[in-house]
Amino acid sequence: MPDVGVIMGSDSDWPVMKAAAEALTEFGVAFEAHVVSAHRTPEKMIEYARTAADRGLKVIIAGAGGAAHLPGMVASTTPLPVIGVPVPLKYLDGMDSLLSIVQMPAGVPVATVSIGGARNAGLLAVRILAATDEALRSKMAAYQEDLKRLVAEKDAALQSEI
Amino acid sequence: MPDVGVIMGSDSDWPVMKAAAEALTEFGVAFEAHVVSAHRTPEKMIEYARTAADRGLKVIIAGAGGAAHLPGMVASTTPLPVIGVPVPLKYLDGMDSLLSIVQMPAGVPVATVSIGGARNAGLLAVRILAATDEALRSKMAAYQEDLKRLVAEKDAALQSEI
Amino acid sequence: MPDVGVIMGSDSDWPVMKAAAEALTEFGVAFEAHVVSAHRTPEKMIEYARTAADRGLKVIIAGAGGAAHLPGMVASTTPLPVIGVPVPLKYLDGMDSLLSIVQMPAGVPVATVSIGGARNAGLLAVRILAATDEALRSKMAAYQEDLKRLVAEKDAALQSEI
Amino acid sequence: MPDVGVIMGSDSDWPVMKAAAEALTEFGVAFEAHVVSAHRTPEKMIEYARTAADRGLKVIIAGAGGAAHLPGMVASTTPLPVIGVPVPLKYLDGMDSLLSIVQMPAGVPVATVSIGGARNAGLLAVRILAATDEALRSKMAAYQEDLKRLVAEKDAALQSEI
Amino acid sequence: MPDVGVIMGSDSDWPVMKAAAEALTEFGVAFEAHVVSAHRTPEKMIEYARTAADRGLKVIIAGAGGAAHLPGMVASTTPLPVIGVPVPLKYLDGMDSLLSIVQMPAGVPVATVSIGGARNAGLLAVRILAATDEALRSKMAAYQEDLKRLVAEKDAALQSEI
Amino acid sequence: MPDVGVIMGSDSDWPVMKAAAEALTEFGVAFEAHVVSAHRTPEKMIEYARTAADRGLKVIIAGAGGAAHLPGMVASTTPLPVIGVPVPLKYLDGMDSLLSIVQMPAGVPVATVSIGGARNAGLLAVRILAATDEALRSKMAAYQEDLKRLVAEKDAALQSEI
Amino acid sequence: MPDVGVIMGSDSDWPVMKAAAEALTEFGVAFEAHVVSAHRTPEKMIEYARTAADRGLKVIIAGAGGAAHLPGMVASTTPLPVIGVPVPLKYLDGMDSLLSIVQMPAGVPVATVSIGGARNAGLLAVRILAATDEALRSKMAAYQEDLKRLVAEKDAALQSEI
Amino acid sequence: MPDVGVIMGSDSDWPVMKAAAEALTEFGVAFEAHVVSAHRTPEKMIEYARTAADRGLKVIIAGAGGAAHLPGMVASTTPLPVIGVPVPLKYLDGMDSLLSIVQMPAGVPVATVSIGGARNAGLLAVRILAATDEALRSKMAAYQEDLKRLVAEKDAALQSEI
Repeated sequence: MPDVGVIMGSDSDWPVMKAAAEALTEFGVAFEAHVVSAHRTPEKMIEYARTAADRGLKVIIAGAGGAAHLPGMVASTTPLPVIGVPVPLKYLDGMDSLLSIVQMPAGVPVATVSIGGARNAGLLAVRILAATDEALRSKMAAYQEDLKRLVAEKDAALQSEI
Repeated sequence: MPDVGVIMGSDSDWPVMKAAAEALTEFGVAFEAHVVSAHRTPEKMIEYARTAADRGLKVIIAGAGGAAHLPGMVASTTPLPVIGVPVPLKYLDGMDSLLSIVQMPAGVPVATVSIGGARNAGLLAVRILAATDEALRSKMAAYQEDLKRLVAEKDAALQSEI
Repeated sequence: MPDVGVIMGSDSDWPVMKAAAEALTEFGVAFEAHVVSAHRTPEKMIEYARTAADRGLKVIIAGAGGAAHLPGMVASTTPLPVIGVPVPLKYLDGMDSLLSIVQMPAGVPVATVSIGGARNAGLLAVRILAATDEALRSKMAAYQEDLKRLVAEKDAALQSEI
Repeated sequence: MPDVGVIMGSDSDWPVMKAAAEALTEFGVAFEAHVVSAHRTPEKMIEYARTAADRGLKVIIAGAGGAAHLPGMVASTTPLPVIGVPVPLKYLDGMDSLLSIVQMPAGVPVATVSIGGARNAGLLAVRILAATDEALRSKMAAYQEDLKRLVAEKDAALQSEI
Repeated sequence: MPDVGVIMGSDSDWPVMKAAAEALTEFGVAFEAHVVSAHRTPEKMIEYARTAADRGLKVIIAGAGGAAHLPGMVASTTPLPVIGVPVPLKYLDGMDSLLSIVQMPAGVPVATVSIGGARNAGLLAVRILAATDEALRSKMAAYQEDLKRLVAEKDAALQSEI
Repeated sequence: MPDVGVIMGSDSDWPVMKAAAEALTEFGVAFEAHVVSAHRTPEKMIEYARTAADRGLKVIIAGAGGAAHLPGMVASTTPLPVIGVPVPLKYLDGMDSLLSIVQMPAGVPVATVSIGGARNAGLLAVRILAATDEALRSKMAAYQEDLKRLVAEKDAALQSEI
Repeated sequence: MPDVGVIMGSDSDWPVMKAAAEALTEFGVAFEAHVVSAHRTPEKMIEYARTAADRGLKVIIAGAGGAAHLPGMVASTTPLPVIGVPVPLKYLDGMDSLLSIVQMPAGVPVATVSIGGARNAGLLAVRILAATDEALRSKMAAYQEDLKRLVAEKDAALQSEI
Repeated sequence: MPDVGVIMGSDSDWPVMKAAAEALTEFGVAFEAHVVSAHRTPEKMIEYARTAADRGLKVIIAGAGGAAHLPGMVASTTPLPVIGVPVPLKYLDGMDSLLSIVQMPAGVPVATVSIGGARNAGLLAVRILAATDEALRSKMAAYQEDLKRLVAEKDAALQSEI
């Protein structure tokens, strides 16, 4: 039974959104991925969101671009935490996507990450699950230590260049 | 039976949105007005949109602010033309509302008017109805003549000031 | 006799604007297309707009970029509903086009669609005509059902990828 | 016979635009002022612009806000230099007005000044007339010397404050 | 032992941030609140973040304005989920705060809510805790039902106004 | 003796600015072109501007990008009309150039054209000279007629495409 | 002999700029303050900048708004470090001032602080002088310790409020 | 012992940041360069900043992109002057980087240069060191003279082109 649902409005969002899936896989978190469009399949989207908690999902990651309504609409129909990924489209560099996702009215929050930041959406889902799962939190802490090592290696590489 | 449905996410949008109602009233177009929230009553919103055409509505005007999902979500669930009014909130001067409404994906258009432009939403609904109603179109043409007279009066007033 | 007039300021707008024509063709809506420039042929533009309704047009779609005056100027001279398409130019990603089209003063609305959103302009014209044409509205409803099927297919394709 | 025509879309623009008139008066340049609306009186606007040069006008100053089409439309119908003043409206701080005026396509220039910068529009008209009028140019040079004196006085006042 | 830490860079952020505390109180979630400044007390901030998980916190809400570094810096030093609230300052309407919080690099997510959206930050913290706490999730679902009732009441009130 | 001075901050601006020179050439207006940098040769720039009118120049066209100070600084030191061309650089699409040029304080106007709009700068210089030169104004009027013919040709070409 | 020159384009900038003077006074750094306008007194500005180093100044702080040319122009004429303060004017919240100051071309840097950030300009001048003045650097370090104490006091005050 | 520390959040910033190193090298100023990440190595960053002055550094140049926290965080932990370089990332053209760096709160200044303006960061460091080093200031003055010569050469080259 997956813990995280990764949804997106179109399969053209997958090249961006798969980075969320990869992050979840790295941490051994089970997920499902679906194309669910707020604008093309509104009832299916509502149904997906309404049943998500009962199906055992604990976090939903939703990516969308332009007038990006998917994350907010899903958040309106589930009590689960919803993470929104602003997908950049051809114009405006994702600024429209960002504002459409983050500027939610009081009552219905969406946990928004950076423009195109699907990997961080995956990592945020892990942190949310890890809030009450010590083993997963240790993995996250270890990952953060790895980031430090990576920086140290990059610094060493830089020394040889200057 | 009303021809136009005027909906908004909260009664706090009414001070902006009532200008749409006033324009419709001026042209003798019957309308209904409802608070229907994309984020607080998603199912009710879907239901409203799904049944709108069958109930006899011909145009829907939807106002919303911030991550303004109401116009686009309604447009996704009805074949009627939907007019979106970006309602300005406390920050960003309605730019978030505008982008959230206008930047709809291919397949589901929203006829967007200016920030806070509810009067124009009402007038646009009249023009849409008038496209196939010659009497109403004559009224719109007469209204446009009135605008000209108004400008002439203002110009005369200006002459006395300079 | 065409129902829809598709106009643009320059033939360089055609690669964007032809998507409106294609949508109209898909729905069997007759249209005409013309290059009519607000800035290079102002009198011709006024003439086009002034006679549009009498020639039998019911909706006008106008695309323009930069200081995009064509949609608003046409709307000022016809009682027909005018749909504006912000055409993105070399700089600013169409934000100038969008604001020049959508921010019309009270009295003269332009039904604005997304930046580069000519296909949606065509679909909006269909919805406007369908408001009083049940057969056309059924076609639009069927089209919306097709969009759902498309999403279902894309979702199936995604399942085989993850 | 006035040298400069000052026009604006509405008498509500006059509180901003009168600064242009004041600057012209300071330099003894004759002007006329009119309410001429691109969106409410398009034919009158075209007529105004078409006959301006023959009536003896040498420069036109046009102020407008929002989807500000007046300066560009006038420029399209006269060979005279047209100065555009972006009038700030209730939202967006005049950024929509600025882009709607300045981003004109190749072939039809508008000499744009700052948001709300009607005084500078007046001074620019003076400079344009002074380009071929040595007496007027001397006045402008003297005015610029006055600005220097003003700065010197302000600097002296500042010294007594610190 | 509190589950949520609410921190902010200055006590001047409290008028915005207390809405997060109120939401937590409504749901019976224990929290602590502290002034912790990224720029004035960097070591204390690092210490706060480093020990948060071990002290039993499960979620951190961090509010900051301008070059808003607090949420991202705390996220860099804890494996817990961090919610960022962009606090609007005197200029730019919180756009600088939003971008400084949401545009985090890959590896370190911040769950960003709307500009000034502290209430939603509190509700998001509840959702995160509720992901693995069925009783709390029921409360959230009940709260969402209440929102629906509220809309129904507002709609009724609107009917008496039109 | 040239009537128009075309200046720019760097020879890298020439690919943009030469369109101004071409427009002037088309109308038979004599010009000079120089690299004069506000930031690298401030004294030379001041000297250029200070002596421009006495050397017989009637209009100055100045192009600059980024923190574009050249047009405004030249305008501060000459009574001649100065036309500013915002040159787009690698980032921000020329929005910084535009604001740095157009937002001049009261007292010192710059006639700003569109981002990258050097051709229009040339045409605006022609209009300024033509304000008191009937022959040149006839040429400009003829040019505007040519634009109309061009649109008619493009419209004809479009007909064969649809 | 003052170490720091504080200049501004108009005495209307003083309410913002005096915070720089106050910061310098707190650290016992001698300064002079003058109204020097890039646009109204270009030659005086050049003279001020050209002689600043020889007169013993070590740092220049320049505040300006709108098309803010003073900091960059001064930087072009002195080898001293120049700190630019974007002064917010009536429209655009200082975004025009910021871009006009910070986006300098390669070769001529301006050390830009936040919009309205004159206090930080003063503190930055202190840091620059302190780079080679150990006593002053100790003062700055002590000031930074004071900031920490202030945060601790604010945190204590917050505890009594929640 | 180096006078200047050049740091950046990732080795991917080096293609931008090396221009700072080159400028320092041209002026014979010794520097060190390191990868120090605010978000991946927060403690190391604090340590770097805390010990910088004692290790003999006089100026720190920090480059970062997106939610760019490195310059501000370093400035919060050292009394040295810190120069911030907004590194442009894939989206938003560095506007997020700029605002995240420049909009620092009162008390902790960052000397911000243009987007991608690493060369100017190097030159600004030279000017800061030169404020109390006459030989270095002469070099900077000589460099500024060279810029003038360069402009003269470019102007000569332009003459042969027109």
